[in-house]
Amino acid sequence: MGRLTVIGFGPGGYEDMTNRAVKAIQEAEIVVGYTTYVDLLRPIFPEKEYMATPMMQEVKRCEMAVELAEQHEKIAMVSSGDSGIYGMAGIVMEVAKKKQADIEMKVVPGITAASAAAAILGAPLMHDFSVISLSDLMTPLELIWKRIDCAGMSDMIVCLYNPKSKKRQTYVETAADILMKYRSADTPVGVVRHAGREEESSYLTTLGELKHMSLDMFCVVLIGNSTTYIMDGKMITPRGYERKYE
Amino acid sequence: MGRLTVIGFGPGGYEDMTNRAVKAIQEAEIVVGYTTYVDLLRPIFPEKEYMATPMMQEVKRCEMAVELAEQHEKIAMVSSGDSGIYGMAGIVMEVAKKKQADIEMKVVPGITAASAAAAILGAPLMHDFSVISLSDLMTPLELIWKRIDCAGMSDMIVCLYNPKSKKRQTYVETAADILMKYRSADTPVGVVRHAGREEESSYLTTLGELKHMSLDMFCVVLIGNSTTYIMDGKMITPRGYERKYE
Repeated sequence: MGRLTVIGFGPGGYEDMTNRAVKAIQEAEIVVGYTTYVDLLRPIFPEKEYMATPMMQEVKRCEMAVELAEQHEKIAMVSSGDSGIYGMAGIVMEVAKKKQADIEMKVVPGITAASAAAAILGAPLMHDFSVISLSDLMTPLELIWKRIDCAGMSDMIVCLYNPKSKKRQTYVETAADILMKYRSADTPVGVVRHAGREEESSYLTTLGELKHMSLDMFCVVLIGNSTTYIMDGKMITPRGYERKYE
Repeated sequence: MGRLTVIGFGPGGYEDMTNRAVKAIQEAEIVVGYTTYVDLLRPIFPEKEYMATPMMQEVKRCEMAVELAEQHEKIAMVSSGDSGIYGMAGIVMEVAKKKQADIEMKVVPGITAASAAAAILGAPLMHDFSVISLSDLMTPLELIWKRIDCAGMSDMIVCLYNPKSKKRQTYVETAADILMKYRSADTPVGVVRHAGREEESSYLTTLGELKHMSLDMFCVVLIGNSTTYIMDGKMITPRGYERKYE
């Protein structure tokens, strides 16, 4: 019986990987992953054997990983961020079950984009927040809007994953409009692109201006709650609503 | 000008720390933190100089860290989990501003409890989720209930931080009752205590049974959405609402 370890290696660089992730990658006989992720790992672990599949072939990649784990002792399946947050952990478990594969499975958590982006922006996630993906590939659009609306209604900080793609140019604008029913157009918003990678960039804007900003699928958008403010270029959500600690 | 690095070292063990966190701790002249966190680090980095303060003295601890950073080149302020999620990152920035301290500040993200717990339970966070703390020390209780209600209404997975303390025995029961307005009493719930530490334990239950379960402030509670299910002892939320990937 082999072991399949589903590893989230965080933003992309060696520095933000956990020791557990590094060890699991080093011990694996074969490292399986989406081409882009594998390309991030090659320079860090040049001695490993890799098997890469293109995007949109998630099920195929999981089947490949499960089959390899049936034949080998240690297989790693990698993704950036946390493989347990919008990641492959769930699909691979379902695929293994369907195939009745006799393998052991482990999930190694990683730094998710919300954490990586928050650290770059300052301290925006000091209070309750919602993580919502704007991809409607597998979620009905009306449910996405309802979630945005509910997060707005209850004044939660909102982390938007997959804010924009070629097919979804206007979604982030709609999300901002929904949130502006409940919070000011001046609400601070932080955008981080390629968090933690060499090409990392970030900027601060406001909810009202968000629709005019440059965004793509490599961005994560953090929208403050009603108490979030900017101090010396840092986005901060105070910990207490009554600020008892001052 | 000294540098103050606010470090989240994840669940507690060396294995789940990022390389960046390890390096920042190793480079620091003095490591400042809450006594419990410092005690977790001492066996891992026995050669370091530590300064520990008891709980509830957050502002004092931040003032101490800022003052040390004014006098030294590299100071680390540590906490478990992610210092950027319900952590000290925000307070320390506000304290530094108030003191007009001429120091550089960096945040090093860590694995937050939701990520650590999800990896142990299976793959519960494959879809949109809300992270909500049940501590009403600095949040009006009615706002907490509104957030739970909104997360329920929009079928988000819910991660409860600080689910129970001596003073807050019934809050988790109220939260479960609110969520049961929208999702079944059979909804899978995973509880992880001391995620990632030696004394780690976890169990699965349901939303209806949650009120009868053993919980304390060291637990994190993950409540599934309407599609979450249990498969071979693992808690899984399918990635797509229409399960297009099957």
